[in-house]
Amino acid sequence: MSVLIVGSIAIDSIKTQLEEHPNLLGGSASYGSIGASFFSPVNLVGIVGTDFPQQYVDLFKSRRVDLVGLEVIEGKTFRWAGEYEWDMNNRKTLHTELNVFEMFSPKLPAAYRSTPIILLGNINPGLQNHVLNQVENPRFIVADTMDLWITIARADLIALLKKIDLLALNDGEVRQLTEEPNLIKAGRKILELGPKYVAIKKGEHGCLLLSRDEFFSCGAYPLDDIYDPTGAGDTFAGAFSGYLASLEKEVFDFADLKKAVVYGSLLASFCVESFSLERLKNLSKKEIIDRYEWFKRASYFGEIEKLSGASGVWPTSSTVW
Amino acid sequence: MSVLIVGSIAIDSIKTQLEEHPNLLGGSASYGSIGASFFSPVNLVGIVGTDFPQQYVDLFKSRRVDLVGLEVIEGKTFRWAGEYEWDMNNRKTLHTELNVFEMFSPKLPAAYRSTPIILLGNINPGLQNHVLNQVENPRFIVADTMDLWITIARADLIALLKKIDLLALNDGEVRQLTEEPNLIKAGRKILELGPKYVAIKKGEHGCLLLSRDEFFSCGAYPLDDIYDPTGAGDTFAGAFSGYLASLEKEVFDFADLKKAVVYGSLLASFCVESFSLERLKNLSKKEIIDRYEWFKRASYFGEIEKLSGASGVWPTSSTVW
Repeated sequence: MSVLIVGSIAIDSIKTQLEEHPNLLGGSASYGSIGASFFSPVNLVGIVGTDFPQQYVDLFKSRRVDLVGLEVIEGKTFRWAGEYEWDMNNRKTLHTELNVFEMFSPKLPAAYRSTPIILLGNINPGLQNHVLNQVENPRFIVADTMDLWITIARADLIALLKKIDLLALNDGEVRQLTEEPNLIKAGRKILELGPKYVAIKKGEHGCLLLSRDEFFSCGAYPLDDIYDPTGAGDTFAGAFSGYLASLEKEVFDFADLKKAVVYGSLLASFCVESFSLERLKNLSKKEIIDRYEWFKRASYFGEIEKLSGASGVWPTSSTVW
Repeated sequence: MSVLIVGSIAIDSIKTQLEEHPNLLGGSASYGSIGASFFSPVNLVGIVGTDFPQQYVDLFKSRRVDLVGLEVIEGKTFRWAGEYEWDMNNRKTLHTELNVFEMFSPKLPAAYRSTPIILLGNINPGLQNHVLNQVENPRFIVADTMDLWITIARADLIALLKKIDLLALNDGEVRQLTEEPNLIKAGRKILELGPKYVAIKKGEHGCLLLSRDEFFSCGAYPLDDIYDPTGAGDTFAGAFSGYLASLEKEVFDFADLKKAVVYGSLLASFCVESFSLERLKNLSKKEIIDRYEWFKRASYFGEIEKLSGASGVWPTSSTVW
């Protein structure tokens, strides 16, 4: 089972307080596709200019990313430059050149229309809606978004929410969209707008997954050093969607989605360990398995069985109970 | 096995954006003792004035809290008034009257000196050190602290860290103490200062527990409404310490501490569901068990077994791996 991923493909220049790297592969569809490719084949829909480096095309091809949906048109590829502060939760955009991305109007090749899992990467919700008008019988639709669209394209975003299964966004965006400071209440408000699930990404604090009647709290894999947070959210969404596709199921239950969140979080934790896709390019199956096992130990805390007995934890001779 | 708890006992006036309540039982030792009392008997060391309401004395007595160490002296009890903003992570102190608390110099009754588990509630680290000079063969020492002491009593706090097993503090305080923005690195820096463990309390984002070679990430129990966050950290530390005492062990391993963090978090989640100790006063064993079981389901995500096989999640026909 494949994932259809629609989003931006960019050439990034990233500056942190320690390093600066120009001409990196970036964009929501790039990170999403490589994240998903660890789990399933990807059908990529995006647009680049004739300057798009062949090495990046080759990277996609080497990772089961189908490029029939990649439009290459005369002109320059979308370029973005950003700088992170010491506190990497804060970044500023130094420069944006939309270039050919300004003409992006996603057209799904016929072979892509019935892809079972859809990931609408972080692009204008008008375009995300446009993609959904072209798909046939999707089994699960994930959409990512960002603060910009909540501000300038709220109506399109609200319309989109009625058609998707899961919205992924960060805690600040959840509060912005709902005007509710309590994250749990805010998450529920989003569910009232349409999606069956909401994934609230909290960076170093992990991720919450809410449905109308279920809840999952996923920690963040602890990292001593973060080299470049760019694309972490896109990688999360990609790995999440790719994992679902790998299950080859008609319907996904909450346990499936929990694991998808874990894989999304773990792949994102690898993503930020180097600039661009450098870490993900060289990531092995063993590294993912090891991190999963470590993370499980770091998240699990055992049974409550001692509490039910007459001895042990709970006082029997006191009047407390 | 009992817990020795030393800390403040106060009469609080708490204002939120919705409610205002005067003359509440407050203080780190009050919340800590009631939190611990669900798991083990408590030896309380604190100071109050002659105005301290009998109903609060009766509450302690009804909960296995030994009051031989409670000094009652002529004068007024410590009073504190605070106000929370809509975002309850932000509060301001409206009023502080130390009263008899200014004379507090904890003296341990002979019967308390060999209490196996020690909780040094949030008071001046000079006083916390003074308590440790009076204890005999403690098995586990927990200390809580706050931003004020990091600012005005850093040397005493650093001296204390060499003598304790676990320091509990919130994420802002961890960063303040270590001047390191990355919480994982900051936590490790605290371990280098002495304690075997550090518990980093993150409020709505849960709690991290670090040792030199182990790690636990505990989510927060999700709450739609928080009525009064006062005392959540003290209740956490109390329940943590009380749970350890209930194990009746000589030495505690990391699995014990993980569960202690979970009980601490759950009791804190009940604490904030009403003002002062109102919710904890009426809390039943069944409610704790139910919340534990729910929380476990909300934190667990299953095994990775599918990954090792030739089918299922991981591609076998691709070149990715």
